[in-house]
Amino acid sequence: MERVTIIGTGLIGGSIGLGLKASQLPGVEVVGYDDSSSALATARKQGAIDISARSIGDAVDGARMVIIATPALAARSILQDIAGRLAEGAIVTDTLSTKAEIMHWAREYLPDNVSYVGGHPMAGKATSAGAAESEATLFHGRSYCIVPSPDASDGAVQSVVGLANLLGAQPVFMHAEEHDQYVAAISHLPMMVSYALFSLARESAAWQDMRLLASTGFAGATRLASGDPQMTHDICVTNGEALIHWIDRFIEELRRYRGMIADDPGELFKALAGAQLKRDAFLAGADKPEREQMDLPSASEQMSTILFGGFLTSRYQEYEKRMRESEERNRR
Amino acid sequence: MERVTIIGTGLIGGSIGLGLKASQLPGVEVVGYDDSSSALATARKQGAIDISARSIGDAVDGARMVIIATPALAARSILQDIAGRLAEGAIVTDTLSTKAEIMHWAREYLPDNVSYVGGHPMAGKATSAGAAESEATLFHGRSYCIVPSPDASDGAVQSVVGLANLLGAQPVFMHAEEHDQYVAAISHLPMMVSYALFSLARESAAWQDMRLLASTGFAGATRLASGDPQMTHDICVTNGEALIHWIDRFIEELRRYRGMIADDPGELFKALAGAQLKRDAFLAGADKPEREQMDLPSASEQMSTILFGGFLTSRYQEYEKRMRESEERNRR
Repeated sequence: MERVTIIGTGLIGGSIGLGLKASQLPGVEVVGYDDSSSALATARKQGAIDISARSIGDAVDGARMVIIATPALAARSILQDIAGRLAEGAIVTDTLSTKAEIMHWAREYLPDNVSYVGGHPMAGKATSAGAAESEATLFHGRSYCIVPSPDASDGAVQSVVGLANLLGAQPVFMHAEEHDQYVAAISHLPMMVSYALFSLARESAAWQDMRLLASTGFAGATRLASGDPQMTHDICVTNGEALIHWIDRFIEELRRYRGMIADDPGELFKALAGAQLKRDAFLAGADKPEREQMDLPSASEQMSTILFGGFLTSRYQEYEKRMRESEERNRR
Repeated sequence: MERVTIIGTGLIGGSIGLGLKASQLPGVEVVGYDDSSSALATARKQGAIDISARSIGDAVDGARMVIIATPALAARSILQDIAGRLAEGAIVTDTLSTKAEIMHWAREYLPDNVSYVGGHPMAGKATSAGAAESEATLFHGRSYCIVPSPDASDGAVQSVVGLANLLGAQPVFMHAEEHDQYVAAISHLPMMVSYALFSLARESAAWQDMRLLASTGFAGATRLASGDPQMTHDICVTNGEALIHWIDRFIEELRRYRGMIADDPGELFKALAGAQLKRDAFLAGADKPEREQMDLPSASEQMSTILFGGFLTSRYQEYEKRMRESEERNRR
């Protein structure tokens, strides 16, 4: 039995477990651990994990792969706690929303005989969803960022690529700093904007009248403010510098619109119409450059054989084929 | 036959038509007019209108009620065009997103022998949806702002209240300036924020890498940037002052979060957790004050009898009953 351990069995950890189980890999058992015994029990009940570990040390004992799927700040002490218990050659990965800090902690705390490969599946749910909302298909068609540490073995990198493929996601390689800048712009800034939109209206003296007028637009624009505050807090703490950079740029951009509203309705109309067109092109996937169409290593067939064997390779080949077909359809 | 005319048969006009037809009022015919012959044909095909008018003058000829459901700036020339063709005692209303300007135009252009009652049903769809997406139930459970002009007859006000009820919406009375301030905060500011979030990322040099990481959060936060640019432009032009006021307040609010991210993670966590709780309470309707629980005129039974007769009154009574029941459920 190859053992895969998931630490943190909330929405992401639980969905990874369900995805692993759904693939019916022979000879793999999934061990789960969570500080919250109810999250752990839910994951067990849903079949996301085979075994509930009693302690974090027990959880990683003999594990071939350890997946940390907790809020960002919790990962630090987890790395410290598991460092002495990891099997030689173990692969450690994570699903955290920020990467530079955890790569730094992994370098600091983990022994040399294990490989660290950071990960970030770009999926989630609107609200602060817990274990109960886990789904095997949560990652289908999503990007899965992979950030190998400099000294991670090839096999370890391939195994995490294999995990991403197994979950139906598309692996994307990035440097930790790049990743953190991009998610600051595309994910963490929208969060903070959502909070600010909500609290501005909510704390306004006229809220009780305003709320009568709040429609789907307001609900949608403030949706991220119902996210898990611990997750958001940890993101802000571990990616504060990039986030502040993007908040400042966003304020400039909003001021640009303000200027057009005040002085130049013609220019404003052009900007609004242009944004609509470009957003629709983005949603339709029509603005992808050529180079991105097949961004996978050529040695793809050898991939992911380390941990999951030929079983996974054939699945990977199937996905690769489907992706190529889908791209050909899109090109037409 | 009582004639109700809808000018502008897009999503809102078409949905009002469908709502009117769905109520199967006897003795009412719905006339539609739209500059776009395809929007008009769609409305006719969907059964949102009984008659397609060939000109705007023909459309309002003999109409008891005229509903203007166009982008805001178009309403000005429409009021000028119809002023000389309106029947004595006609009721003119609208569905525009801003109210002060149109109330002003109505005062300027309409004759004394007609009544103007502004309206704003708080409903819509995510994207720049046209006539084809009209639905009879679009306004169900939504607020419907009613802004009577100072010299509108009681009967005219009651008829527009009747229209709101007929569509399943909840009438809310407001002054034009109040309305415009509130929607600036709750609806127009989120729009501009959505555009700025999208264009900031889209025009960034790293967009082609960033887009790989864009998940449901980014799509949701930028959703309003796929709205109809003409609608948004007109809103900015007719409500610019209020919108700029709220953009400035929003920038201050975002700076407050920026400050907490930089200096005070503890305070930040409190703010995030507080926002989540308050937003969830808002979505659950749990933060409504007592006074708002039944904010309808006491003469409700006499309402809406002017245009639609007893038929509508009984429907209204039914809605009132349902609302009371729903509120009782919520209180439990």
